[in-house]
Amino acid sequence: MKTHTKYLTINTQERIQFVNITDKIREIVEESGVKEGIILINPMHITASVFINDNESGLLKDFKEWLEKLAPMKKDYHHHQTGEDNGFAHLWRTIMGRETSIAITDGKLDFGPWEAIFYGEFDGQRNKRILVKIIGE
Amino acid sequence: MKTHTKYLTINTQERIQFVNITDKIREIVEESGVKEGIILINPMHITASVFINDNESGLLKDFKEWLEKLAPMKKDYHHHQTGEDNGFAHLWRTIMGRETSIAITDGKLDFGPWEAIFYGEFDGQRNKRILVKIIGE
Amino acid sequence: MKTHTKYLTINTQERIQFVNITDKIREIVEESGVKEGIILINPMHITASVFINDNESGLLKDFKEWLEKLAPMKKDYHHHQTGEDNGFAHLWRTIMGRETSIAITDGKLDFGPWEAIFYGEFDGQRNKRILVKIIGE
Repeated sequence: MKTHTKYLTINTQERIQFVNITDKIREIVEESGVKEGIILINPMHITASVFINDNESGLLKDFKEWLEKLAPMKKDYHHHQTGEDNGFAHLWRTIMGRETSIAITDGKLDFGPWEAIFYGEFDGQRNKRILVKIIGE
Repeated sequence: MKTHTKYLTINTQERIQFVNITDKIREIVEESGVKEGIILINPMHITASVFINDNESGLLKDFKEWLEKLAPMKKDYHHHQTGEDNGFAHLWRTIMGRETSIAITDGKLDFGPWEAIFYGEFDGQRNKRILVKIIGE
Repeated sequence: MKTHTKYLTINTQERIQFVNITDKIREIVEESGVKEGIILINPMHITASVFINDNESGLLKDFKEWLEKLAPMKKDYHHHQTGEDNGFAHLWRTIMGRETSIAITDGKLDFGPWEAIFYGEFDGQRNKRILVKIIGE
């Protein structure tokens, strides 16, 4: 059995931003030398998400508007009594999901034609880490 | 370490449909010969979901009505500027989740009494693929 | 390759309750002896969730109010025609997610500073089981 661990650091220009990390993840799969296995990818922060969807700018705009409708940014959340102002970001990450697991087959991400991996940042503009863990052989 | 990879093809009669794939997954676990490990199941498409919930027809109806409330089908999504009409389907799949991972113990899905595995199709009526990856021993 | 399987039993005092299980999971990782791998944690029930977020009481209150807004408890769900009254609980668990997978590195949960693991119970006050599966080496 082989395992391979990698930490990516991302600092987004906007507070809320989607970053396509698919190419970066493909590189990590290649450098791991794992031919058959599973890769787990997750932010190490609780106001961010790693998810798989379409790499289409209109859809990414739809996500932002939809999340704002489901959990408005400006609401006065209980969480804000701690001095924070990012209550919405914890809820948005819940909708988008924390992590994704992807199969590795023949040394590559076993993906359908439109699958792309995104880091969803909901409280950015500072260094955040993404954890990549591969297990397989 | 053993790995086992399988692709299922599903073509639903309805555009939106839930398909119980539990028995099919049990067969794949058995044919893999894996006694202890993890199975990852995901659609290879971005308008579909694999999730675990109750096999009860009323609840499946509740899911459809609830998803329609959270992200209406008829809304004019930015994504539609590409010529697509399935913006809602990308959002529904986000709510329902892309993938599921399940423990394999003693050669079987390690399930509670009511857990059932569903493929959730939100833009169907054409061939779609589901990926099944088992790792273990 | 090593695997390690454990079942936790939880009986919450309230019907709806969040329980921080991080320390319990850390103990299981330690007793497994696995140094590099993945741990999968999921309820064996379909009205509960295992998720990762902030251990902050105000945020946990926000989650409850938000879930009630997205899927009201008192609504007359189709699922209730079976005699059940927990339709909302199936939907809440869908929002919060069924399971989580976490990397194990150097024999420990590979966690960011604020990540905490919660069992989210939405129809409790009876014994429920959580499955913990570790694979690695």
